[in-house]
Amino acid sequence: MTILLRRLVLSSRPIGVRLYGSKVDKVEAVVYSSYGAPSQVLKWHSYGLPALTRDTVHVKFLASPINPADVNQIQGAYPIKPPFVALGNEDNFSTDGGDNDKVVKAAVGGNEGVAEVIAVGDAVSGLKKGDRVIMAKTGHGTWRTYAAGPPEDFQVVPNATSVSLIQQATISVNPCTAYRMLKDFIPPQQGKCDYVIQNGANSAVGQAVIQIAKAWGLKTINVVRNRYIIAIIAILRQELTALGATHVITDDQLGSFETKSLVKSWVGKNRLLLGLNCVGGKSATEMARYLSANGKLVTYGAMARAPLTLPASMLIFKNISFYGFWVSKWAETHSKEERSEMLADLVQLMAAKQLKEPRWTAVEWNEKAVKEAVENGIQGYGKGKQIVLFDKAQ
Amino acid sequence: MTILLRRLVLSSRPIGVRLYGSKVDKVEAVVYSSYGAPSQVLKWHSYGLPALTRDTVHVKFLASPINPADVNQIQGAYPIKPPFVALGNEDNFSTDGGDNDKVVKAAVGGNEGVAEVIAVGDAVSGLKKGDRVIMAKTGHGTWRTYAAGPPEDFQVVPNATSVSLIQQATISVNPCTAYRMLKDFIPPQQGKCDYVIQNGANSAVGQAVIQIAKAWGLKTINVVRNRYIIAIIAILRQELTALGATHVITDDQLGSFETKSLVKSWVGKNRLLLGLNCVGGKSATEMARYLSANGKLVTYGAMARAPLTLPASMLIFKNISFYGFWVSKWAETHSKEERSEMLADLVQLMAAKQLKEPRWTAVEWNEKAVKEAVENGIQGYGKGKQIVLFDKAQ
Repeated sequence: MTILLRRLVLSSRPIGVRLYGSKVDKVEAVVYSSYGAPSQVLKWHSYGLPALTRDTVHVKFLASPINPADVNQIQGAYPIKPPFVALGNEDNFSTDGGDNDKVVKAAVGGNEGVAEVIAVGDAVSGLKKGDRVIMAKTGHGTWRTYAAGPPEDFQVVPNATSVSLIQQATISVNPCTAYRMLKDFIPPQQGKCDYVIQNGANSAVGQAVIQIAKAWGLKTINVVRNRYIIAIIAILRQELTALGATHVITDDQLGSFETKSLVKSWVGKNRLLLGLNCVGGKSATEMARYLSANGKLVTYGAMARAPLTLPASMLIFKNISFYGFWVSKWAETHSKEERSEMLADLVQLMAAKQLKEPRWTAVEWNEKAVKEAVENGIQGYGKGKQIVLFDKAQ
Repeated sequence: MTILLRRLVLSSRPIGVRLYGSKVDKVEAVVYSSYGAPSQVLKWHSYGLPALTRDTVHVKFLASPINPADVNQIQGAYPIKPPFVALGNEDNFSTDGGDNDKVVKAAVGGNEGVAEVIAVGDAVSGLKKGDRVIMAKTGHGTWRTYAAGPPEDFQVVPNATSVSLIQQATISVNPCTAYRMLKDFIPPQQGKCDYVIQNGANSAVGQAVIQIAKAWGLKTINVVRNRYIIAIIAILRQELTALGATHVITDDQLGSFETKSLVKSWVGKNRLLLGLNCVGGKSATEMARYLSANGKLVTYGAMARAPLTLPASMLIFKNISFYGFWVSKWAETHSKEERSEMLADLVQLMAAKQLKEPRWTAVEWNEKAVKEAVENGIQGYGKGKQIVLFDKAQ
């Protein structure tokens, strides 16, 4: 009765979501309203889902990973800082447990995830109910059950349901990073690049690089961190080789005379024009030495937390050039059409089993489990990507 | 009589140079036949000028600089190593003073210089008597009075005589380096670059950068090495400002908070997208920090003999990229037409007094003077570029 009454009374205001058949009015989210240690600043928070308008959509999150960058973001150490805003309608805004007098201004944690469109305003084009979407930009919190917003906030994953939910949820960061680095930096005008070298080859991006490179006919030299137990290296080598790695070496072998001869014999007269670096420090310098003249080294991470050290001769006489890559910036500076083309290519590779699901572990959607998973993320969780599954919560 | 007789007898052999009115048969050169200290390995050497053929030309050298790279080359520390070859016709080859039994296989020193075409074979097109030419490639020795070779060895300087002999002799290395770095790395698709920052601003390339940038409407921030005597800095600032420098700062100011604010106030909302580095080490890193997002740092020298140290965040989040530039490689990988276009542009700037002669000192063409000048070159000669003038010798 009350609902019907509101419908009549509010007919000139934004049309309530219920009209579209979605019975949602509450959002649960993991939010932060100041930067700091995640265990200190992360809060479980619920608020009213803003009513659907002619120009907005409602989406329901299905799965959202917990990535290292999400943790840095909460710590305030990431260049993209979502603004702290009043979440939901102020009308029905639930307040923070600790301070009942103030409306909570906060940012929702998480940057990656897949959601399903559950309601669409009359004036919205380009999105329809049932579409699987990812976030258009980095900074749109994904650790929440629902979100409302203009269609520009979201981007459809083409043929999404031809691949697993985990693949949909993790497509926008790691596979896109691998795809773009392999596609955009190899200079076609210099002739075919035959070999790619990368460090951190066992990372999620590294594994995507191995598989996409293989699908595109590129050979890979894969550098992994050395382990104390030789058997672990052997297993790792086996795993990466099964994914399509051409060669696997450890980082402490990288500078040795033997490895130099070995790599030389592998590459032969082929061209090794691309190096991908997520480690930095000595590993990056040593790797760059293997590049053929006019090669490019692309840095997308800094696991060793040490700067790159580049002899001038490498730049001047060998014409090696050095770039950075950041997938968030790429998405920001390229059209949705270009991104859609990439997503379609990646989905196709996944559907054809050429690009596998990353290793992953499920995280339940409750306060304790999510906070624990974020803590694990800080400590370098070794059991694969942690992915929040919202299903049980809804 | 003898000449006429030879014409008849040798009509099926290469036609002697005398037929074309040039009375030259002897070349004097400064050569080296092993790598080492220039004072040890450089030798004064004379040999017969190879006879003119239908397909070759004869050139007479007018002026050739002694550049730092020439010294490195003699020391064996330069990537381009001209082969040691028998110089001249073996028929009339004069032998090395110390060893009369062996034909000398050697390389002629020097890489830059201007020569005049004095004779042209019948089948040669593209070159004519009187043309002022520079060397087509690095490694064609220029410390010699004459040379013979196919026209491909040389390249005409368009409108050469509209500028000074010194400008002709020094056009191919420093001004071309400055020109290409300013032209090829500023990405026009990213909008106008307003500011360029460079270190080693008082070097010959640095001075050319200041002037070409000014002619093209670019402002420059010029970093010079600090001097103990403040008055010298003042004079230097005055000199560079007279050339067109917008701002001059010293390298030890580069990292200071005050300089950061200062540069920020200079650049304002303009874009500082290009940095030019011939120093390396800390200077390069500090300079790169001033670049606007998406900027490029180009390294063309390593005066500090220290590698570049690059924080990964500069690459990833600020999208600064790092390149090397080597004018020899550029000439090798681009057409004569492209080089000719650049030379014409530079000559035009010079003729319009927008690009001045470098500071220079004359070196007489005799064994003692040249060897002394090369020694000066090793020790860092402070009185400007040393240029061998051949006139008195001919």
